[in-house]
Amino acid sequence: MRVTVWNEYRHERKNPKVAEIYPEGIHGAIAAFLRGAGFKVRTATLDEAEHGLGGDVLETTDVLFWWGHIAHDEVSDEVAERVQRRVLEGMGLVVLHSGHFSKPFKRLMGTSCDLSWREIGERERLWVVAPHHPIAQGLDNTFVVPKAEMYGEPFDIPAPDELVFISWFQGGEVFRSGACFYRGQGKVFYFRPGHETFPIYHQSEVQRVLVNAAHWAAPTGRVKTQFGNRAEPLEPVKSSSQ
Amino acid sequence: MRVTVWNEYRHERKNPKVAEIYPEGIHGAIAAFLRGAGFKVRTATLDEAEHGLGGDVLETTDVLFWWGHIAHDEVSDEVAERVQRRVLEGMGLVVLHSGHFSKPFKRLMGTSCDLSWREIGERERLWVVAPHHPIAQGLDNTFVVPKAEMYGEPFDIPAPDELVFISWFQGGEVFRSGACFYRGQGKVFYFRPGHETFPIYHQSEVQRVLVNAAHWAAPTGRVKTQFGNRAEPLEPVKSSSQ
Amino acid sequence: MRVTVWNEYRHERKNPKVAEIYPEGIHGAIAAFLRGAGFKVRTATLDEAEHGLGGDVLETTDVLFWWGHIAHDEVSDEVAERVQRRVLEGMGLVVLHSGHFSKPFKRLMGTSCDLSWREIGERERLWVVAPHHPIAQGLDNTFVVPKAEMYGEPFDIPAPDELVFISWFQGGEVFRSGACFYRGQGKVFYFRPGHETFPIYHQSEVQRVLVNAAHWAAPTGRVKTQFGNRAEPLEPVKSSSQ
Amino acid sequence: MRVTVWNEYRHERKNPKVAEIYPEGIHGAIAAFLRGAGFKVRTATLDEAEHGLGGDVLETTDVLFWWGHIAHDEVSDEVAERVQRRVLEGMGLVVLHSGHFSKPFKRLMGTSCDLSWREIGERERLWVVAPHHPIAQGLDNTFVVPKAEMYGEPFDIPAPDELVFISWFQGGEVFRSGACFYRGQGKVFYFRPGHETFPIYHQSEVQRVLVNAAHWAAPTGRVKTQFGNRAEPLEPVKSSSQ
Repeated sequence: MRVTVWNEYRHERKNPKVAEIYPEGIHGAIAAFLRGAGFKVRTATLDEAEHGLGGDVLETTDVLFWWGHIAHDEVSDEVAERVQRRVLEGMGLVVLHSGHFSKPFKRLMGTSCDLSWREIGERERLWVVAPHHPIAQGLDNTFVVPKAEMYGEPFDIPAPDELVFISWFQGGEVFRSGACFYRGQGKVFYFRPGHETFPIYHQSEVQRVLVNAAHWAAPTGRVKTQFGNRAEPLEPVKSSSQ
Repeated sequence: MRVTVWNEYRHERKNPKVAEIYPEGIHGAIAAFLRGAGFKVRTATLDEAEHGLGGDVLETTDVLFWWGHIAHDEVSDEVAERVQRRVLEGMGLVVLHSGHFSKPFKRLMGTSCDLSWREIGERERLWVVAPHHPIAQGLDNTFVVPKAEMYGEPFDIPAPDELVFISWFQGGEVFRSGACFYRGQGKVFYFRPGHETFPIYHQSEVQRVLVNAAHWAAPTGRVKTQFGNRAEPLEPVKSSSQ
Repeated sequence: MRVTVWNEYRHERKNPKVAEIYPEGIHGAIAAFLRGAGFKVRTATLDEAEHGLGGDVLETTDVLFWWGHIAHDEVSDEVAERVQRRVLEGMGLVVLHSGHFSKPFKRLMGTSCDLSWREIGERERLWVVAPHHPIAQGLDNTFVVPKAEMYGEPFDIPAPDELVFISWFQGGEVFRSGACFYRGQGKVFYFRPGHETFPIYHQSEVQRVLVNAAHWAAPTGRVKTQFGNRAEPLEPVKSSSQ
Repeated sequence: MRVTVWNEYRHERKNPKVAEIYPEGIHGAIAAFLRGAGFKVRTATLDEAEHGLGGDVLETTDVLFWWGHIAHDEVSDEVAERVQRRVLEGMGLVVLHSGHFSKPFKRLMGTSCDLSWREIGERERLWVVAPHHPIAQGLDNTFVVPKAEMYGEPFDIPAPDELVFISWFQGGEVFRSGACFYRGQGKVFYFRPGHETFPIYHQSEVQRVLVNAAHWAAPTGRVKTQFGNRAEPLEPVKSSSQ
């Protein structure tokens, strides 16, 4: 299992508060606990050539994590399209927090992915609504993120193929926080918690979810498909019917 | 209910065989039976200015029908994006046959929308798999399209929110032929049957499905949403927790 | 549209506090506002012969509302099975609040329908998560039930075919509060709000949801099905292949 | 992984033609290839005490396979209810062919599970419609069952949570042949192919599907749930609001 963690990596270099929480960048923090779980992990960032996703990086990635926030528009359409295509070919994609507005996620959803929000460090409670789901394993019914940015419904996404978590916020909102989508031969998991100035990726339950998600999103193998080909009849078609 | 029928309108002008079957164009044939069912119908075609979808045409359309085949790439990205945005705002979209590869449909699905195909005029049988569904009303369990182009699975779309029809083909394939998708505040119906040289849009069962689909896809009204706004807390958030 | 409102009708006759809020019974209150919306409404209660659902009552009911709480076990298996069968034939069913544990609902879901709960009169906020849905029409994004019994996740139901509302509770829980299920030719809507000592069915937003739900759950007509019949081949099957 | 294969085991003892194809019973044939795939397998049959599912058999079963046909009614309601409850607790269930009418499956679906049928040994082609799905791994796009009993749509089940296979039949019908359902903490897979006088369980593709299904249906672990408990508030609820 080869994981690539992609990060915009701007906040950390501009804002000392963010750098303090994530001295190796958000990608560094995520890569560290994924490595601890046994995955082979690389990182890639916006300001690298081709955003770090050139060459055969995507072709040799089983699951891609994506964190972006203030520079979604600086991701080239070409790279966004390449990520989308790789997902359709079978690569897993885990989209984090503000990545709801990233180009690859919006392309895969086909919707605006819009939502309401508030940033006052309120309490968030996540509830498991699919106890059977692999991404929920090892968790209790519910867990708390002590200080979070709020994201509120309606969240303009297609109905998830599987809904795993719903969030409660202190200020009165709810949100579909953990949502699975099957697209082509690939799997997409959107996970709401995460932020640049709250230390959410250091929290054990959040790490557990993301490790579970990497396992879940891994390619399952390939059914040989014949897309786009003219197909010969498998059964006799009488000429009289033509 | 204001319906706009969009047609690429190239086959009819180049190929006398097509013009014979659809002397007023495919859009003309579809518009005629929709008018007969009581809808207020306009048409629009690729070679008009802004593909006939400029001004307030889309803003004053409740349901848009879309037929394209050989010139998908000539539809401008701007118009494709406008159609997508209008669907998310609540406009219904009925995508016909080879429209599976059209820009608006691919944008809304987020997948390749690829499939396998064969064009030998074989028999197609459609089966209702959701007997409760409004789009199936007035039909029997099954009906036949005598001569059809085959489309075969796998069809690279997201799992439909509602699957209404599955097709059987004489040559051995099956296909998810009638599929409903909810996207934003809008509804999308993909319907497989249809062709430029088989007189499929003159068939009564096909017309019935498309009339039903126009009713189903109509906007349901609007819930007042607050997308993209910073939201004030609805409940007290204690400063001690911040 | 013929609606029948079924009520256990025990609380109202034992508890003066309930009788004060619902002097005509919960069924009477619900019947009144449904009549106001133009439906033809009858009521039926547990202690009538065959629970008021004998003769042709169910056969002449388009949508059945169901309220029960302390006497689910006193509903006969025969009547529960009859309700289930009628839903599969096309009758709509709207299940209210504590009806999550009623026999007809549990039979139709196939799951335990269990949940967690708390009864301290806390605030509930419902959020629309499917703005396109007919059941949400005429509402704002969110509305408040000032005093509610809490129901919490996980709610042991199959994944709803359409999820319309999610509830937030003051005490920290969330709940899938408005959920649609297609079963056979019938439609089922579960709606969480409601209680015997909080005047929830007098609240305008709740009434709006239930009027919308009655329209949504109405039978759509009938596709002629051939269940259980031995079918003749529609296509030639060569004897050589047998 | 502990698998139990349940068989009605009547055909094999009455009909020499069946005994010839399945000398160890259908359960014996299925148990053999599952053992070959590394599972620990037991069998159980209708005419054993408690249908072979007494004691702690179900409690120590991870995945249960179910084959029944002519004696569904002889399965006791108590055992059927026990199977249902164990699925809700997390046991996997793989329902085979005519098991669509078995008590455990009907209880879990909540619908009639009816269909149309024909038994003339016609050709069936299965098509993969979810190429990403674990149950489809190792297969081509399509495979043939040379002689099959036909099952036709509409199939009266809830919309599957995941649809993996659709069947084509020589005589003109289609069928949702491989369908996944999540119920409680358990997983249910219905697989259409199979018969007592056609040697379908000896076919390699069918065996591959059933081995994949056993892996897929295995319990994923347990989220600690608090069903049916009165819950204490997790957040302060002001007395003023009560």
